[in-house]
Amino acid sequence: MFSHKVNEDTQLRLLEVRDADQLFALLDQSRSYLREWLPFVDGTRTVQDIECFIQSGLQKYASNNGVELGIWYRGELAGVLGLHYINWSHRLTSVGYWIGERFQGNGIMTNSCRTLIDILFKEYELNRVEIRVAPQNLKSRAIPERLGFQNEGCRRQAEWLYDHYVDHIIYGMLVHDWKVGF
Amino acid sequence: MFSHKVNEDTQLRLLEVRDADQLFALLDQSRSYLREWLPFVDGTRTVQDIECFIQSGLQKYASNNGVELGIWYRGELAGVLGLHYINWSHRLTSVGYWIGERFQGNGIMTNSCRTLIDILFKEYELNRVEIRVAPQNLKSRAIPERLGFQNEGCRRQAEWLYDHYVDHIIYGMLVHDWKVGF
Amino acid sequence: MFSHKVNEDTQLRLLEVRDADQLFALLDQSRSYLREWLPFVDGTRTVQDIECFIQSGLQKYASNNGVELGIWYRGELAGVLGLHYINWSHRLTSVGYWIGERFQGNGIMTNSCRTLIDILFKEYELNRVEIRVAPQNLKSRAIPERLGFQNEGCRRQAEWLYDHYVDHIIYGMLVHDWKVGF
Amino acid sequence: MFSHKVNEDTQLRLLEVRDADQLFALLDQSRSYLREWLPFVDGTRTVQDIECFIQSGLQKYASNNGVELGIWYRGELAGVLGLHYINWSHRLTSVGYWIGERFQGNGIMTNSCRTLIDILFKEYELNRVEIRVAPQNLKSRAIPERLGFQNEGCRRQAEWLYDHYVDHIIYGMLVHDWKVGF
Amino acid sequence: MFSHKVNEDTQLRLLEVRDADQLFALLDQSRSYLREWLPFVDGTRTVQDIECFIQSGLQKYASNNGVELGIWYRGELAGVLGLHYINWSHRLTSVGYWIGERFQGNGIMTNSCRTLIDILFKEYELNRVEIRVAPQNLKSRAIPERLGFQNEGCRRQAEWLYDHYVDHIIYGMLVHDWKVGF
Amino acid sequence: MFSHKVNEDTQLRLLEVRDADQLFALLDQSRSYLREWLPFVDGTRTVQDIECFIQSGLQKYASNNGVELGIWYRGELAGVLGLHYINWSHRLTSVGYWIGERFQGNGIMTNSCRTLIDILFKEYELNRVEIRVAPQNLKSRAIPERLGFQNEGCRRQAEWLYDHYVDHIIYGMLVHDWKVGF
Repeated sequence: MFSHKVNEDTQLRLLEVRDADQLFALLDQSRSYLREWLPFVDGTRTVQDIECFIQSGLQKYASNNGVELGIWYRGELAGVLGLHYINWSHRLTSVGYWIGERFQGNGIMTNSCRTLIDILFKEYELNRVEIRVAPQNLKSRAIPERLGFQNEGCRRQAEWLYDHYVDHIIYGMLVHDWKVGF
Repeated sequence: MFSHKVNEDTQLRLLEVRDADQLFALLDQSRSYLREWLPFVDGTRTVQDIECFIQSGLQKYASNNGVELGIWYRGELAGVLGLHYINWSHRLTSVGYWIGERFQGNGIMTNSCRTLIDILFKEYELNRVEIRVAPQNLKSRAIPERLGFQNEGCRRQAEWLYDHYVDHIIYGMLVHDWKVGF
Repeated sequence: MFSHKVNEDTQLRLLEVRDADQLFALLDQSRSYLREWLPFVDGTRTVQDIECFIQSGLQKYASNNGVELGIWYRGELAGVLGLHYINWSHRLTSVGYWIGERFQGNGIMTNSCRTLIDILFKEYELNRVEIRVAPQNLKSRAIPERLGFQNEGCRRQAEWLYDHYVDHIIYGMLVHDWKVGF
Repeated sequence: MFSHKVNEDTQLRLLEVRDADQLFALLDQSRSYLREWLPFVDGTRTVQDIECFIQSGLQKYASNNGVELGIWYRGELAGVLGLHYINWSHRLTSVGYWIGERFQGNGIMTNSCRTLIDILFKEYELNRVEIRVAPQNLKSRAIPERLGFQNEGCRRQAEWLYDHYVDHIIYGMLVHDWKVGF
Repeated sequence: MFSHKVNEDTQLRLLEVRDADQLFALLDQSRSYLREWLPFVDGTRTVQDIECFIQSGLQKYASNNGVELGIWYRGELAGVLGLHYINWSHRLTSVGYWIGERFQGNGIMTNSCRTLIDILFKEYELNRVEIRVAPQNLKSRAIPERLGFQNEGCRRQAEWLYDHYVDHIIYGMLVHDWKVGF
Repeated sequence: MFSHKVNEDTQLRLLEVRDADQLFALLDQSRSYLREWLPFVDGTRTVQDIECFIQSGLQKYASNNGVELGIWYRGELAGVLGLHYINWSHRLTSVGYWIGERFQGNGIMTNSCRTLIDILFKEYELNRVEIRVAPQNLKSRAIPERLGFQNEGCRRQAEWLYDHYVDHIIYGMLVHDWKVGF
């Protein structure tokens, strides 16, 4: 319902069902760009598939177990930023994201992640935030690296990407290492 | 997760489970004040009762059928503003609200309602918003009246309030009567 | 399973799945007649749609939250009479009904409503029964008026009917105004 | 909601939650009488237990898989008559019943069963109705025998009754053997 | 996951979703043979139908209410052996089975049943095991007869088999009659 | 229902509700030993808690999403070996285990894990198996190390253990590195 300002150009907001058309168009325009690293692109064929994704994100949020946010850049839906789950016993979460091809290169995702992670540590009082990226996905790796995450290791063949396995670097950030006003 | 600014002092935010303690304290401090017009005060005995209320509000939101928002005034949780349901077939909703005793008299609720209703008409493209109030509840009636709602009639004995029935005036606002910048 | 006699010609009975064929035929024969005031006619395309309606009526009954009754007139299924919900906290309900075109004009619905409402006040000990009708729907308005309901107001644009909004008059009856042997 | 007349004195009606107090009292007054042959008496300790039984009967009815009826004799709740399930694939069901001690000996149950079974064969078009009774339970056996059921065999140790097993005679009736106006 | 050895040639194992293809092929090869006595053959059209059957068997097992086992004979899936339900209150169950046409005549099913029933009496401490067979189904009747079950009666027209009813002989075995090392 | 032989002394079997008493006793006898590394010991207060654990394990198995196995050593329940989940999209799983204090030191867990992992790679055709252990938990680390798993990194503060965080080494094994007859 409400949005959170990242900076003058960028806002985060909970994805709602009314956003399905825009989000499908965004993904559809960047299929070849996105499918290089995202396993769900080919399986997302229709607006209904996106509605299911949004619905399950809202259920995740309602059960206090994660969230799927849209990123709006200068009034346009530019990407998705979400928490796969929140483990409250161990106070940790895992962040995932993607952005439409034409929106990349503006620091939108780095800024959005910084804002979200700041909320996770300060408002939600989590202890650990994790980002998992394939080693060859340099654009995506740049984000945790810019934000000061530590490379904690590499899970081999952690993800099946249409026709081959990719490894996952685990980047971790702990609350006591998070810099105010990074 | 994110808040919406009503004005310098006032913000709206989706109620989350982590707000249960504050919300229970707010209600608990104003029991005698609130129970004059609210039927759920006596049945809300513990923080767990409030958690159930918040959970069911989040489920309502996740299923696109309403919402429960907290109102923060100068950083303190001051009241609740919600939609009992959203009827998408007929594009109408019904608004309910309450505020802690010590926060009343500052226009907080009128301003919060104006902001929410503006979103309902503009972002959610609803056609009709309804507010139901007992005739003798003058403070609560003042809100739809200040906002230009029309008194459309009075449902007799519409609500059981602990030991007696009260009537409900139905106030209605249609999108084509809603003034920009009211 | 069991029926309730309204008079020599007319009986009420809980709709069961085995009634789906007859009920679909009844609606199907009166489509143009019914769609003038009923929003669900166009969306009811198949016997399966009717089965869903009957199933959800049985669930409503099982959870003590309403009912959908068939009206049998001289052995034929002639119409539907139901309670949208029962609000036990406030002891109120809302009645809805429709009848096949060729059965109208015999007082079937007025008699059936009188019988049902008598049960609602006496057996179920409800306090308030409501009927909502569009102002221009004179045949339907005649029923609460004949039964002594009070016109309590008019909710503007309360229902979307295919391509336009209609208002709803709220007719209310309270138990202390209900006449025995009306 | 509605009742079905068995004869001048006796009526059948779907058990609803509002009947829980009466039904609990009926069982409670006949505990020692009923527990000789019914395995659920000791486990039914409170009105809430009876409410659960009624709720599950309504769910069974709503899902077209059986029913629990109350038997009213001269205006008092006298017993329960139900279908454990309805197997629509094979068009068969199984009937169970019990009656309060002071109501027995009036033919209430035989008449009620005859009425119900007549409905099962004629309205529901079932093919087979079954009643299972312990061989030593002579009062209960008298009912299928009076109604012309056939003794088809005896399942040994089919039921655990608090501290011992009892056998079950299977009585069966087929639609083509059911006499009109028996 | 794990299998249980019946003898050198025969093993039992919980059916899992990964077995669906094999099980469908087995049934598909023996359609005319199996449909003589099994009511579900015609309704099992696709591998998805078999997956549903396996899923519901796993749910039955997980809720402690029965099981569906595959019988492997010399490494090939040869048949199905299951418990329709387990009634823990009365400590009884009902066994059902079928075998592919080319596997019959080797004693596979008699041996598999003996092994399963032994487990039911010894590990699960059941008191009664039941097998229901049509009187004319001589091959199937041979199994409880070889295992010493008692013919307890015949439920007339207990099963609808595509275009006619068949009776069911009830065979029963009690734990105190079960011979060790039968 | 059925067990799988690891060697002469050791067997694996799906945990069923009937195992709850034994499993609770096993945990209860080793509380101080187990709580050094297991976060759930203090929260497991009663046999009912263990029943819930077993039930959820069976549900996990029924939905093809993991399993909880008991390890029997010379006829006694000695420990638990389970899969937290199975990710079929990426064909990976994560193994967890614990053993009663008096059973440790016999190679039971190493042998049980080897057997289970062999089944996971060969029967279930998974690609990757993961084991996560705290660096200071040397006994537990010995198992993946003996089995040839690779240390792929260390997630810092991945688990809250009553009053402090512990790190998790991630050990990974891929199917192409798994030695037959290891």
